[in-house]
Amino acid sequence: MEERLFHKLFLDELKDIYWAEKHLVKNLPKLVKAATTNELKDAISNHLRETEEQVKKVERVFELLGEKAQAKKCDAMSGLVEEASSIIDETDKGTYTRDAALITAAQKVEHYEIASYGSLTAMAKVMGHDDAATILDEILEEEKNADTGLSDLAERSINERANNE
Amino acid sequence: MEERLFHKLFLDELKDIYWAEKHLVKNLPKLVKAATTNELKDAISNHLRETEEQVKKVERVFELLGEKAQAKKCDAMSGLVEEASSIIDETDKGTYTRDAALITAAQKVEHYEIASYGSLTAMAKVMGHDDAATILDEILEEEKNADTGLSDLAERSINERANNE
Repeated sequence: MEERLFHKLFLDELKDIYWAEKHLVKNLPKLVKAATTNELKDAISNHLRETEEQVKKVERVFELLGEKAQAKKCDAMSGLVEEASSIIDETDKGTYTRDAALITAAQKVEHYEIASYGSLTAMAKVMGHDDAATILDEILEEEKNADTGLSDLAERSINERANNE
Repeated sequence: MEERLFHKLFLDELKDIYWAEKHLVKNLPKLVKAATTNELKDAISNHLRETEEQVKKVERVFELLGEKAQAKKCDAMSGLVEEASSIIDETDKGTYTRDAALITAAQKVEHYEIASYGSLTAMAKVMGHDDAATILDEILEEEKNADTGLSDLAERSINERANNE
């Protein structure tokens, strides 16, 4: 069992994002259900499947470090997901504005993850955990792609329609 | 006074980030004080000055929209700043690991802002608020640069030193 402070920092961050991913797996289905357009429903559904795989990938990182997979509640992610869920109450069903708001909230979630996996990847590299770094970097790219996909969706169709309703 | 749902969404997001920026102006000084290295102290100080200017820029966006500048508490940012502040209690003074942890927390703050200004810029463009979009896009670039600067600092020097202590 490693005792160094930097290892502990890395492990705390990993437990935090592990909780976050599992929390998303539980909560993304209600956003899929609430979304107005099929485009957004599909985008979130696809990312839900990806998130389920990411949970397993994070478990593999724990394993590579010889550590037990443990989740530690992440208040920031809890708040971001709550913010996304509250949009369902605050916007009218069937409106494009609801989708624009859901995209904004989902991108905040994605950006939290981008920051977290960015730090984790850099830390894993410096510690010489190359296999762990490869997995973390792979998840980082998936989160960046999810974010870009949401931006494209908003800019290509949702925002224009929301602005006209 | 605009009544459209999309305009209201935009305005709510603007009030949220206005609160966030003002909250950062209040809280960044204690992170500067707590940081171990002069490199990180300088990076946060510089971003504090930039943040003070961003408060004024957001006020200008309200003005361009013919709206009163209003702040609305942003729970997510409040949580992220609290997380950054708690690092001061959880890490030992004078360690590089403290700086590595502060950078991770600060990048989560930056990424929240990147997501928010990204959405705001896209919304302003579609609504035809071109001058507001230009200002929002300028802040977006500043936040991205601040984030990149923190990544560089971690990867160039802090993480290595933290890993060796």
